[in-house]
Amino acid sequence: MKALVYKSPGRVAVEDVPAPVIMEKRDVLVRVTTAAICGSDLHSLHGLTGADPGTVLGHEFCGVVEEAGDGVSWLFKQGDRVLAAPQVACGRCYFCQRGMLSGCREMAIFGSGPLFGDLPGSQAQYIRVPFADVALLHIPVGLDDEDVIFTGDILSTAYMGIEGMSPGDTVAVLGAGPVGLMAVALARLHGASRVISIDPLEYRLQKAREMGADITVNPLREDPISAVYLSTGDIGADLVVEAVGTTDTFMNGMAMARTGGTFSALGIFSQPVEISNFDLLKNLTVRTGLGNPYRMEKLLSLIQNRRLDLRPVITHRMPLDQAEEAYRMFDAREDNVIKILLTVR
Amino acid sequence: MKALVYKSPGRVAVEDVPAPVIMEKRDVLVRVTTAAICGSDLHSLHGLTGADPGTVLGHEFCGVVEEAGDGVSWLFKQGDRVLAAPQVACGRCYFCQRGMLSGCREMAIFGSGPLFGDLPGSQAQYIRVPFADVALLHIPVGLDDEDVIFTGDILSTAYMGIEGMSPGDTVAVLGAGPVGLMAVALARLHGASRVISIDPLEYRLQKAREMGADITVNPLREDPISAVYLSTGDIGADLVVEAVGTTDTFMNGMAMARTGGTFSALGIFSQPVEISNFDLLKNLTVRTGLGNPYRMEKLLSLIQNRRLDLRPVITHRMPLDQAEEAYRMFDAREDNVIKILLTVR
Amino acid sequence: MKALVYKSPGRVAVEDVPAPVIMEKRDVLVRVTTAAICGSDLHSLHGLTGADPGTVLGHEFCGVVEEAGDGVSWLFKQGDRVLAAPQVACGRCYFCQRGMLSGCREMAIFGSGPLFGDLPGSQAQYIRVPFADVALLHIPVGLDDEDVIFTGDILSTAYMGIEGMSPGDTVAVLGAGPVGLMAVALARLHGASRVISIDPLEYRLQKAREMGADITVNPLREDPISAVYLSTGDIGADLVVEAVGTTDTFMNGMAMARTGGTFSALGIFSQPVEISNFDLLKNLTVRTGLGNPYRMEKLLSLIQNRRLDLRPVITHRMPLDQAEEAYRMFDAREDNVIKILLTVR
Amino acid sequence: MKALVYKSPGRVAVEDVPAPVIMEKRDVLVRVTTAAICGSDLHSLHGLTGADPGTVLGHEFCGVVEEAGDGVSWLFKQGDRVLAAPQVACGRCYFCQRGMLSGCREMAIFGSGPLFGDLPGSQAQYIRVPFADVALLHIPVGLDDEDVIFTGDILSTAYMGIEGMSPGDTVAVLGAGPVGLMAVALARLHGASRVISIDPLEYRLQKAREMGADITVNPLREDPISAVYLSTGDIGADLVVEAVGTTDTFMNGMAMARTGGTFSALGIFSQPVEISNFDLLKNLTVRTGLGNPYRMEKLLSLIQNRRLDLRPVITHRMPLDQAEEAYRMFDAREDNVIKILLTVR
Repeated sequence: MKALVYKSPGRVAVEDVPAPVIMEKRDVLVRVTTAAICGSDLHSLHGLTGADPGTVLGHEFCGVVEEAGDGVSWLFKQGDRVLAAPQVACGRCYFCQRGMLSGCREMAIFGSGPLFGDLPGSQAQYIRVPFADVALLHIPVGLDDEDVIFTGDILSTAYMGIEGMSPGDTVAVLGAGPVGLMAVALARLHGASRVISIDPLEYRLQKAREMGADITVNPLREDPISAVYLSTGDIGADLVVEAVGTTDTFMNGMAMARTGGTFSALGIFSQPVEISNFDLLKNLTVRTGLGNPYRMEKLLSLIQNRRLDLRPVITHRMPLDQAEEAYRMFDAREDNVIKILLTVR
Repeated sequence: MKALVYKSPGRVAVEDVPAPVIMEKRDVLVRVTTAAICGSDLHSLHGLTGADPGTVLGHEFCGVVEEAGDGVSWLFKQGDRVLAAPQVACGRCYFCQRGMLSGCREMAIFGSGPLFGDLPGSQAQYIRVPFADVALLHIPVGLDDEDVIFTGDILSTAYMGIEGMSPGDTVAVLGAGPVGLMAVALARLHGASRVISIDPLEYRLQKAREMGADITVNPLREDPISAVYLSTGDIGADLVVEAVGTTDTFMNGMAMARTGGTFSALGIFSQPVEISNFDLLKNLTVRTGLGNPYRMEKLLSLIQNRRLDLRPVITHRMPLDQAEEAYRMFDAREDNVIKILLTVR
Repeated sequence: MKALVYKSPGRVAVEDVPAPVIMEKRDVLVRVTTAAICGSDLHSLHGLTGADPGTVLGHEFCGVVEEAGDGVSWLFKQGDRVLAAPQVACGRCYFCQRGMLSGCREMAIFGSGPLFGDLPGSQAQYIRVPFADVALLHIPVGLDDEDVIFTGDILSTAYMGIEGMSPGDTVAVLGAGPVGLMAVALARLHGASRVISIDPLEYRLQKAREMGADITVNPLREDPISAVYLSTGDIGADLVVEAVGTTDTFMNGMAMARTGGTFSALGIFSQPVEISNFDLLKNLTVRTGLGNPYRMEKLLSLIQNRRLDLRPVITHRMPLDQAEEAYRMFDAREDNVIKILLTVR
Repeated sequence: MKALVYKSPGRVAVEDVPAPVIMEKRDVLVRVTTAAICGSDLHSLHGLTGADPGTVLGHEFCGVVEEAGDGVSWLFKQGDRVLAAPQVACGRCYFCQRGMLSGCREMAIFGSGPLFGDLPGSQAQYIRVPFADVALLHIPVGLDDEDVIFTGDILSTAYMGIEGMSPGDTVAVLGAGPVGLMAVALARLHGASRVISIDPLEYRLQKAREMGADITVNPLREDPISAVYLSTGDIGADLVVEAVGTTDTFMNGMAMARTGGTFSALGIFSQPVEISNFDLLKNLTVRTGLGNPYRMEKLLSLIQNRRLDLRPVITHRMPLDQAEEAYRMFDAREDNVIKILLTVR
């Protein structure tokens, strides 16, 4: 089959690789119809995830069931349209029972190298999905791949960031990439009084306004911390969502949250962060870590009822054959790119 | 001063009565600028609250501080614009500390007769507000009486009905009077997947659609229980808000809530209700009772940020002099009336 | 195999019946080692559940896996020691995803007749467990059947009653049968300030004191509502748990809850109940319905760590052969019976 | 009057200073009966809080009302026995309404120097309490100063650390000083499955066992992180409470929390802390900051009902005259000291 594979730091290519087969009872073999490229795939592109050359990349996808193992054939039949979580997990352990798939010993993220279980990815014609009763969901009738493809990964991550907010809260979102934009849309949907989007790229701030931001701040032009305090009568934001993953945005996020507020750090950090002891006095609740796709059903129902439309983040659609070019563009942030979908046939 | 007083069952009149004066340290004397007529004032009109002839009616109002007692003069100065909760309470007891003003031994509702503390009402030129540090709030700069007058009473009641709902929930609201309409607006604001409004009056359903209802059901034309199950794929509503106060709507509300759902009975019931033992198997959470105005600040911030506009429920504005006629119209549901404001000078 | 079967109203008998076999992919066949008799089995005994003569009764049990269907063989192996929920459910539907097994269309309760899915019961040598990945749990090493047998049914039910209580609450429990006693133990474990147990049988009140009740009230000797108000400085109970199932205890429970408190009705009611409109003013949260065994893991961990010892409720242990006599005794409340276990071999 | 005042780094003394008087309407003048020395007073002793020489220290106290200002005389009368929060705040602002006194612009901590409002402290014969309706509470009849003196400060802080934990959780507490010991007691009261206390001083671990710890770990003898993983089957602690305030304990605390767990940092940190990016992947909820005394009533009710006995932390009782010696002993951790009370007359 055709697949996008990692070659060497900075280089990926579409190649022919062996198609996967069912290996365990709870496996499902999926024929991929749409795969997305995620910001974290760029870590792989640059060789930061330790993936071996030849690794199939990608963890966001929709597809059609080709075959289901004995342990899940009661649930999935050939021809079922499905969407997936980016990670697989056993579904039974202490962590899985608490919705914390990221703590499961069996946890693996598709196409993300040996640190995350070395599971082949989804930018390919076929993919093997272990623990499919946990990782796969049927796509509701009436919805397209494009409606739902973000549900398992970046929408779940963004949802983790805003979960627990109260209607009336002021929400500041650092970063207007795909996760940040979804946090903006979700904050608005949850009744935020004010949504403040912060990003240095003007075209992304424009998109943030389209998706519900009331106020946009370009840190190249004004200090985002002052901007937040100014627009909240010197109180600070009730909730700050960090969707970038740098030490700077982490520290700024802590600083712009009000005393007693919440700071959700959704980014993947490649180095330690520092917390000022002044900010430690502020009674913050800091939430960190990987998204956990345990709310997919709820998020799907919001999409089905047209409360949430995520298609505006899709700026490019390209065939799998052009995946190499897609990675290049995405990495270079060319052509006002936000999110690229790969269509597979 | 002029005031609207209860005369006899079915009759009220605007008369001259003695103006109130400060009596306790925490009293504030307020010059009323706007007063509303509430559905529960009609209970008084018909003599059901046991109010003595001569009682000044009304519990929804905005005004201007005329004088503040020693115990609250640190907080209120002459000329401050204020809005009020419909009830007063001590602010210190077991109940008050838990936001349950309705349980306070000192609790009294303005203009609602001896069952509720026999406190003179607000459809008058002046009103004495006991425990003013608990019952009064400053009106934020930039907001009119009409923006905020419902905050303490019917908006707080409606909020109690939807508090705790989750984004994505299907919400059914029985009754599209003022409280029901506010529940519709709040449910929408809180990210409901679907809001279903149920009322026998078409003009009220029309208003419900304006305020955010996705589906409206007229029980004179279709069975509301079937309608809810039909529009939820036979699951039932996650949350049902009852904003009428009859045995019928109580039982219908219980029936249309899904297993594990929530039923909020906001109405004031004049007789016992019955719960079927079948519905008792459904793992419902049933919430009952009077509104508690402990979320007024939060609700004000939603109004201030233009997330919530309640002015569409105001269908009539009349001077206090015409209050008798206003009661008549409101009681007869003439002229597509929903809510009448009395302007006072 | 031997099994206790329903014969006619008032009569059960141990008879030879055909042993069950695996029928569906997610079935597990369990060899029963211990089965309990539940208060609700007495409804079957008296012909109130519509069970056909010959129905095997019982829904509380522990056992050993004999055989596992293809769909669950990844999870259960022959020889695994298991405990069960009283009901089975699909695990995938809207309700199951929200922990509301009682709403699942596939829901069935073992040995409880046609109203609950007509599934053969557990007071037998073998039992077929459908949807075993949902209904069965491994018994942690080091724990006996007697330690864990109540986890899925009556402990889960009692837990539903106290879930959400806050440390410091005053908790009143109506009924000191098995469910009521477990509610007493759990309330104590959750940091209740005061636990009040109410029951007309002195030996049960004695047991309630052993399991953590601070105050016991015999309604034959004093008015329980007055007793609750007296011991709370006229405030009422923060949480009332009803574990009987009569109109009387329902109404008393509503009456003894404080304004703003919670009333959990755990009983199975055979007729409608009435709520006074006075109690409706009290801002109560009323929770109703069947237990849902979605917290079994958490409850097991409390047992494993010796925070919760439920064995004191076991007053009798009898072999399956004597099940007929056991039913008679239990129904007659002879010999200070609280809970009878049937040992099976 | 006599008072313990700061002299110079490392030196305090009992001296004669002018007695305070009522200055604002909401002030109450309290005659102190008991004052405690807090770990954070040692920061003042060593000149780290910037307190001017002559500053009266101390923020934990009980006493008797001597005089009440006009704005609070409805609430406090001469002779009332009262206990206090360590900080005062306006009670009306955005932060106060959310229970976040630490965010109030008027917030000041008694006897803690200019960084915290320069308010004279409580280790004296008299103290002026501003905003007394917020900061003071009546001592329930039947309770002594020693029963309740910790409620406003260290017990509230410890409670903040465990709030939101679930029964069944494993709780690890770093530090077995007064706050850590109270966290141990509270975790036990809230139904923790296992409470692990970690401290290098054996006499404190002994006290931790008395107050409810199941497991004690001396980091001088074994690695506390390994000990936590060992005793949780390699899962980690559901909740970690840090009650020390060093970079080391902060980092250890983050490391011993399980994926998806909670880390409450209660300590006062004198320098920034670092978070490893590995720990950031763990989906932790990190809570930080000063205690907020908004749960004092609830905590008092636990004490009143004998669910919580904090007197075991009191190791020494000394007259105010000997406060200088008390500071010396406490700072040197002599004589197995945990908490010293100063009795005042």
